[in-house]
Amino acid sequence: MHRCFEVTVLGTSSASPTKTRFPSSQLVRLEGDYFLIDCGEGTQHQLVRLGLRMQRIRYILITHLHGDHFYGLPGLISSMSLFGRTEKLTIVGPSALKNLLDTIISTTESRVTFEIEYIHTNPIKSETVLANRKWSVSTVPLKHRIPCTGFILREQGPELRLNASACEQLGVPVEWYEPLKWGDDWTREDGTVISNSVLTLPGNPNRSYAYISDTIYDENIVPHIQGCNLLYHEATFLHNLIERATETHHTTSKQAGQIAAKARVGKLMIGHFSSRYHQTDELLSEAKAEFDDCMLAEEGITVAV
Amino acid sequence: MHRCFEVTVLGTSSASPTKTRFPSSQLVRLEGDYFLIDCGEGTQHQLVRLGLRMQRIRYILITHLHGDHFYGLPGLISSMSLFGRTEKLTIVGPSALKNLLDTIISTTESRVTFEIEYIHTNPIKSETVLANRKWSVSTVPLKHRIPCTGFILREQGPELRLNASACEQLGVPVEWYEPLKWGDDWTREDGTVISNSVLTLPGNPNRSYAYISDTIYDENIVPHIQGCNLLYHEATFLHNLIERATETHHTTSKQAGQIAAKARVGKLMIGHFSSRYHQTDELLSEAKAEFDDCMLAEEGITVAV
Repeated sequence: MHRCFEVTVLGTSSASPTKTRFPSSQLVRLEGDYFLIDCGEGTQHQLVRLGLRMQRIRYILITHLHGDHFYGLPGLISSMSLFGRTEKLTIVGPSALKNLLDTIISTTESRVTFEIEYIHTNPIKSETVLANRKWSVSTVPLKHRIPCTGFILREQGPELRLNASACEQLGVPVEWYEPLKWGDDWTREDGTVISNSVLTLPGNPNRSYAYISDTIYDENIVPHIQGCNLLYHEATFLHNLIERATETHHTTSKQAGQIAAKARVGKLMIGHFSSRYHQTDELLSEAKAEFDDCMLAEEGITVAV
Repeated sequence: MHRCFEVTVLGTSSASPTKTRFPSSQLVRLEGDYFLIDCGEGTQHQLVRLGLRMQRIRYILITHLHGDHFYGLPGLISSMSLFGRTEKLTIVGPSALKNLLDTIISTTESRVTFEIEYIHTNPIKSETVLANRKWSVSTVPLKHRIPCTGFILREQGPELRLNASACEQLGVPVEWYEPLKWGDDWTREDGTVISNSVLTLPGNPNRSYAYISDTIYDENIVPHIQGCNLLYHEATFLHNLIERATETHHTTSKQAGQIAAKARVGKLMIGHFSSRYHQTDELLSEAKAEFDDCMLAEEGITVAV
């Protein structure tokens, strides 16, 4: 059975919101852990509207310090405190974020009821910023007007499952089950070795989700996101505005499709749409022409990775 | 004919938003000028949703630096710039606001395309902070956990209208029309004086709107808001939570009604409701028991002053 790994879209607008679109934010649920990626203005409202429990969020990943990606953070921290949070919150993002949040918190004389741990991203080098036995989070350096990183969330864990009848028949002790799922052979007490392949079956390969926003078209990211099951890529403009996209360090829908094709990802989801687009059909069809398995990010949808 | 003086409610929640309630913000239109009072997170989204033109806003009045009253300001300034604003914006609020906004703007490397003028409020003394021939804005010191002021917007102008037939019959020169509307008598060239009352009729008395949030119950504000046509008063809690209200420096719905009765205002509108109240009927009936002409603030409603 697949473990839980899903993305709920909270906001899909670029710099300015529209009647129906909120600025960037997504909630990722991975093996029982909740991650928020970006936190544009109104994110806490979206969480409440969609019935998602803000206190479950343990990690917040901020790509860069443009307002549409983090102006919801002070309000979210304030509400978490108001509702009595005590659990630590880990914020991963550009190094300037800590001072800015500290200044906001002290100016507003806010009481924060929990510890905030900051992990600084390096905008020029990919790094693993969080990891445990179940998953890892690594960064992808992006080319935007200010320091910016994308994020890749990967499952980590045994990709094999036990061949229950074989294990039983051969009398494998319970303490060997976990090593077997990780690929070890079984060494019996008498020293004989039983090959892992006899005792396991192909399981669930580890999945990965790449969140790429904001960036100019940049093929340097392809090796990082190669083969991801799901790629979210910004697609701020249609390709007829390629000059505007280049000038503002954004990507066109066509280019997002091209990146997905080069990286051979499983599925592409585009978002971060300019407020000039009331309809998004054309953005979708433009990306689809480059990479067919493409969908639009929309407020409230949940996508399995 | 009455001039335009109306209030559109953008947000009615207290500290944390609910599914249907946004944090504090109101748009006031007065004689062609647009004022925003408070600017909680999501205010720009509310303006867009309600089809209200953010670039028309010339003055922003901030009561105090709790996040639910100003966290929407950086995003609003950013969107105003993105859409090419050049007209000056005047922000009236606590003195710490300027430094905080400057820090946010510089950290995010935002380009602000227009001049921002700051006017600092004095939290311990009522002052007129803005005034012209048409209207004035003055402050009301409030008792909250941090420095806080309410605001009173008043029409200013001639309260008399010309008695057209009398003016014509007696041959009043055109240049006397304006002084007559302001109450002057007419001094003819030969030195004789014609009483104002012969030449004018009762016109439209100047109206006033008082915005009182956030504050503990405080009768000291009554002389300031005496006789206002419309009073917005916070009513965060029902009176059974009077202890919680006192402790957090907020007002109960009953107390808001009592203040309205003491100040003999024309109409009371209550808002700033705690997120614990899914239904607001009881908040309304509690205030109404003290002051009958009371209504609930609700997102999107427009009330004539």
